[in-house]
Amino acid sequence: MKNFEEKLAEHRRSVDKLDAILVYTLGERFKQTEKIGILKAEAKIQATDHERELVQVERLRKLSEDANLDADFAEKLLKFIISEVVKNHDKIKSR
Amino acid sequence: MKNFEEKLAEHRRSVDKLDAILVYTLGERFKQTEKIGILKAEAKIQATDHERELVQVERLRKLSEDANLDADFAEKLLKFIISEVVKNHDKIKSR
Repeated sequence: MKNFEEKLAEHRRSVDKLDAILVYTLGERFKQTEKIGILKAEAKIQATDHERELVQVERLRKLSEDANLDADFAEKLLKFIISEVVKNHDKIKSR
Repeated sequence: MKNFEEKLAEHRRSVDKLDAILVYTLGERFKQTEKIGILKAEAKIQATDHERELVQVERLRKLSEDANLDADFAEKLLKFIISEVVKNHDKIKSR
């Protein structure tokens, strides 16, 4: 039977691999939102879009149920990511 | 040539798919950290582990460079996730 240290190390290896997925997925997500930011700046459209944000929150909360993730946590995380996106969009606009 | 609306919709579809990956990956990550929380509670070991956290931060910052992700953002995000993990661990301990 595995001891405490072995079990802990095994779960931590999984966490590390999942974190790599998160980092690369976020890298790609910011690539996509940067393109959106450029499109919006060219079209002189506001960076924030509250209607889109509401749809995203609703969709993520539903996905979270299926993924056994706390929906409030998912919503907070999405808002944290979006606030970074908006900062980046503002930077693009002021270039 | 695609117009603004078509280009925007295309990038948003990518963002939505990437968000689904994020939600399912986080669901699995919390499953793993829940197991870690149970192991630690059984072994009566403290939920927080600053040494492990430093290693994780360092690793994520390196991965972020490769993923073209802002390293400070990645660190803030990791700390946000870890704070949720610690809250969950404390809940497990008090069961």
